[in-house]
Amino acid sequence: MTISTPGVTLGVVGGGQLGRMLAEAAAPLGVDLVVTDPTEDPPAGPVASDALVGDFDEFSTIRAVAERADYLTFEIELTDPDALEQVAEETGVPVHPKPDTLRLIQDKLVQKRRLGDAGVPVPAFRQVDDEDDLLAAGEELGYPLMLKAREGGYDGRGNYPVESPDDVTDALDAIQGPAMAEEMIDFERELAVMGCLGADERDTFPVTETIHREEILRETVSPPRADEDVRERARSIALDVLDAMEGRGVYGIELFETSDGEILLNEIAPRPHNSGHWTIEGCHTSQFEQHVRAVTGRPLGTTERRGPTVSANVLGDVPDRQRATLSGEDAVFETPRAHLHWYGKREVYRLRKMGHVTLVGDGETMDELLADVRALRERLTFQSRSQ
Amino acid sequence: MTISTPGVTLGVVGGGQLGRMLAEAAAPLGVDLVVTDPTEDPPAGPVASDALVGDFDEFSTIRAVAERADYLTFEIELTDPDALEQVAEETGVPVHPKPDTLRLIQDKLVQKRRLGDAGVPVPAFRQVDDEDDLLAAGEELGYPLMLKAREGGYDGRGNYPVESPDDVTDALDAIQGPAMAEEMIDFERELAVMGCLGADERDTFPVTETIHREEILRETVSPPRADEDVRERARSIALDVLDAMEGRGVYGIELFETSDGEILLNEIAPRPHNSGHWTIEGCHTSQFEQHVRAVTGRPLGTTERRGPTVSANVLGDVPDRQRATLSGEDAVFETPRAHLHWYGKREVYRLRKMGHVTLVGDGETMDELLADVRALRERLTFQSRSQ
Repeated sequence: MTISTPGVTLGVVGGGQLGRMLAEAAAPLGVDLVVTDPTEDPPAGPVASDALVGDFDEFSTIRAVAERADYLTFEIELTDPDALEQVAEETGVPVHPKPDTLRLIQDKLVQKRRLGDAGVPVPAFRQVDDEDDLLAAGEELGYPLMLKAREGGYDGRGNYPVESPDDVTDALDAIQGPAMAEEMIDFERELAVMGCLGADERDTFPVTETIHREEILRETVSPPRADEDVRERARSIALDVLDAMEGRGVYGIELFETSDGEILLNEIAPRPHNSGHWTIEGCHTSQFEQHVRAVTGRPLGTTERRGPTVSANVLGDVPDRQRATLSGEDAVFETPRAHLHWYGKREVYRLRKMGHVTLVGDGETMDELLADVRALRERLTFQSRSQ
Repeated sequence: MTISTPGVTLGVVGGGQLGRMLAEAAAPLGVDLVVTDPTEDPPAGPVASDALVGDFDEFSTIRAVAERADYLTFEIELTDPDALEQVAEETGVPVHPKPDTLRLIQDKLVQKRRLGDAGVPVPAFRQVDDEDDLLAAGEELGYPLMLKAREGGYDGRGNYPVESPDDVTDALDAIQGPAMAEEMIDFERELAVMGCLGADERDTFPVTETIHREEILRETVSPPRADEDVRERARSIALDVLDAMEGRGVYGIELFETSDGEILLNEIAPRPHNSGHWTIEGCHTSQFEQHVRAVTGRPLGTTERRGPTVSANVLGDVPDRQRATLSGEDAVFETPRAHLHWYGKREVYRLRKMGHVTLVGDGETMDELLADVRALRERLTFQSRSQ
């Protein structure tokens, strides 16, 4: 290949924080981004060459992006695989990961079935189309269980815990549509692996511990506080997952380490993932650079960890949607080896992902490093100081 | 302070590679860039919020940038300190570094005088306005000596070596204008220190060895292959230089280590500098992030080195100005811990700075690491493969 200017343009469906961090990573490689997002001035806007306005699944906008791009990818699963496929066919612009893989992942039931069939350990699950199915699932999987919308959920949206047969009606009302029931996992900890598929190579970033509350990622810890054997098995399962994926790019693979030491697949995201943000400072190649390399047909970079690294999400801590003004951030600027990543969102609401803080270690234990990044994150608030 | 979106906008006079790398570093901090550059589609364009077209010293463009900015800085010395000063006064937008410091640095004679007076060791020099002055300089400093244009030179332009009194006429013809003569330094190696001035703090990045050919920087080596004592003295002199500077920001401070172990100031650049590009991967805070922090009034980041790091400039290797197409870059992508930085220039000509390659060490000696990055750089060419 070669590099020139104007050179390779990467079209991205979605212009949120993932698009923004993709653009930050793409520029040094001579790759420009054109994104499409439903909102004007999306997070990726200031660092992308251009941001078109259009829904994630709108054929005409996806096509308009492709017409300006050499490669097409997406940073959100809510895009339409049919539209991606048709645009790729009509324009000849390759799309990665493959629309078929996106389809597979979009339907959580299909995802679990296919990966289970491929030998990947998954929690026990059952298709749920009506109350009878859910009651049968309760018999089979026991209570509590997790009812999940088959499509469209993220950050805990679309998940409903079912404690007993009494919850069945409420649960189905909440989910509204095709669903699946999954055994509730008694986990020791959650792990995540960023997998990478290149043109003819596959790799994984180092296994990472993820900590959720209210089903939203709060912190990552890498290396995880888990045995070497657990990490090895997690990596091996991630490689098996990659074998079931089609198309170049990075994949966020979320896992449970159960209390009896089993590793089970939780979910897959066919894109850069919150659990891999620590790689920006923590690895020689970030997940964003890796995705740009992979999708544009470049060789993958090393996934070697540079050093122990933790991250903490900066989430909205105000009850109502309002203009976002973060204060306390000088605490981050004043801390050596702490890095602030602001996502460029104009408005904040409760638990909205507004940014993250990464802290690179310098001899601390992982417990200490996690406590340090949490303490830093606690200094940050969107609440008015006078409140 | 706080962070919001839209938030702090940094206006930058100049939209070249330094502006581009400033924009890459500014985005995670929630800082947008608006640049001004004489060319349409300058290197910083794709990652800046906006790029205005105008000469570096054009009052109206500088004013237009300031009107959209909260802070004003420059990434090229060719801007006009009077214009900066007037714009700052009229708009109330602070400019850093201070126009007075830019004036001081723009005139190499004034720079050397002021710093010499401040106790910074400088090479012997003499003002040269005519042939008599230059001949007198030859008597005083010996031959060969270096004749330097007092203003406007960079990357060796504006420097003329004078071997004997026979060269005097040619040298003055070449320089055309106010000049200074400087003793030719017999140096063991060249060193550079990126200094940083914050609101009420000063610091330096680790001392770096710089290797020039044809007066153009080719490689950097950090840590330098010099004694600890030499590094300590270089850092100490850099701190003295900073004391003579006014205004926040990073400063590139170029030094000679003479063959008898003396450290002498060569030149200062009041901006991020080629000798500091290695800090992007080599330090926890890059010189670009540091400059954004300093100019926008944030605390400085740690200047700690993460690991041994070398860089090699990718220079134009074609005789004539032409469309730039770099090949061989997959060698960089395939090398672990190697990082390509493409500057986004459309055209290449001989010795034009088109990008750089950084290589982070993994146990090699600095000699080996330097050889490795040179070998990688040798794989890169703008020459057509069929030539």
